[in-house]
Amino acid sequence: MAYPGYGGGYGGYTGQMPGMQMQMGQPMPGTVPNMPHGGYSGYSAYTGGYSTSDPMWNYFTAIAGQDGEVDAEELQRCLTQSGISGTYSPFSLETCRIMISMLDKDYTGKMGFNEFKELWAVLNAWKQNFMMIDQDRSGTVELHELSQVIAAMGYRLSPQTLTAIVKRYSKNGRIFFDDYVACCVKLRALTDFFRRRDSMQQGFVNFVYDDFLQGTMAI
Amino acid sequence: MAYPGYGGGYGGYTGQMPGMQMQMGQPMPGTVPNMPHGGYSGYSAYTGGYSTSDPMWNYFTAIAGQDGEVDAEELQRCLTQSGISGTYSPFSLETCRIMISMLDKDYTGKMGFNEFKELWAVLNAWKQNFMMIDQDRSGTVELHELSQVIAAMGYRLSPQTLTAIVKRYSKNGRIFFDDYVACCVKLRALTDFFRRRDSMQQGFVNFVYDDFLQGTMAI
Repeated sequence: MAYPGYGGGYGGYTGQMPGMQMQMGQPMPGTVPNMPHGGYSGYSAYTGGYSTSDPMWNYFTAIAGQDGEVDAEELQRCLTQSGISGTYSPFSLETCRIMISMLDKDYTGKMGFNEFKELWAVLNAWKQNFMMIDQDRSGTVELHELSQVIAAMGYRLSPQTLTAIVKRYSKNGRIFFDDYVACCVKLRALTDFFRRRDSMQQGFVNFVYDDFLQGTMAI
Repeated sequence: MAYPGYGGGYGGYTGQMPGMQMQMGQPMPGTVPNMPHGGYSGYSAYTGGYSTSDPMWNYFTAIAGQDGEVDAEELQRCLTQSGISGTYSPFSLETCRIMISMLDKDYTGKMGFNEFKELWAVLNAWKQNFMMIDQDRSGTVELHELSQVIAAMGYRLSPQTLTAIVKRYSKNGRIFFDDYVACCVKLRALTDFFRRRDSMQQGFVNFVYDDFLQGTMAI
C-alpha cells in the first residue's frame, strides 16, 4: 500500500459493484487496522442472465423505440412502469439523469439495454439495502443509518466526508429513497471515474482541470 | 504557464465570479492562441452593497428564523417568494441544494445572509445571461447557446467537455432555466473546489480519493 492511512477495500476487488456489498456489523474485507478511510470498494462487470423474454426487455423496448436506447425522461418512465420503486416514490428526473451518466462512458446521454440491465441489478441491490434499514416502511431512514450503509457497501471514507455526504442528501433530517439512490449512484459513478484515472490503484490521481470537470459535471 | 495547452483565463483574475463574465462574440481576456482549453475564469469575493433595509433581508429573515440560516427547502421558499426567477419556473429543490453546497465551506448544509447575498448577485448575473439568449422568452435555450454562454463566462473547456456538459443539463434537446442555473452553480462550485486545491495555479491537482469525494459528492 503506497499511501499511509489508505485503508483496504480499494484494491480488494470483491466481484461486487460498489453498493452491492452489504454486510452491516461485519468487518469489511481488506480493512487495515488504524487505516479507517481512503479506500473504495471493488467491483467487476455485471454478467447477469436476463434474456429477451424478460418483462424488463418489454418495458425497455416499448419505450426505447427505434434507436434502442433511452434518455433520462424515457428511463424515468421505464423505471416507473417497471414498479422497481415498489411502495417508494418514483425516481426523480434528476436521479434518472445521473443513472444515465453513471454508465454513459461515451457521453451520448443515453442508455442501451445492456446498461439498463446493469442498472437494474444495482438498483435492486440498493433497494434491498434500504428496505433492510427502513423496517417500518416509512420511506425514509436516518442520517446515521445512511452513513452505516455507505460504510457497509465497502466505501472507506473519513467521518467528515461521510457527514458531509449524508447531510447533502437529507431532507428535514431524513433520507428519502430517491435521494438515497441518487447518493448511491453518485458515489459509484465518482468512484468509478476516479478509479479509471488511478491506474496504479494508489488512491490518488493527478487531475487536469478539463478532465476533472468532464468527469464530475455530468454526475 | 507551466502546462502546455493550458489556456488563459485561469490566472487572469478578472475580479468577477465565474459565471458573471459575459462577453459573447468578443475575445476572452487572456486567451492564448492555439491553447483552446484547460482554463477557468477568475473571481473575487462579492462585496455588494445590500443593506438590512433591503427587501432581500426581509425575505431571508422571515424564513431563516432563529438560527439566521436557511437550509435547501427554506432557500427554495426564499427564492420563490423573492420572485428572482421572474417568468421562469421556480428553482427545484435539487438546484437549491447545490446552491447551498456552492457556498457551504464548512459543510453545515445551511446558508447565512452573507452567502445569500453572494448567491443573489450571481443568480441575477446568470439570469441576465440567460435572458440575453432566450430573446423570445420561451424559457429554454438551445444546446449550442449554452456552450457559447459557458465559454463567454470565461471557462476554457475542450469541445468534448462542453458537449458532455450541455447534454447532461438538457431536456428534450433544450436547456430550461432551472437546469441552466444548476449547470452554472456546479461549474462554479467544482471550479472553486479545484482551484482551492491548485495552490500553484497550474491547472492540475493531485487528489486523494477521500478529498475528491468530499468535494464532488455534495455538488
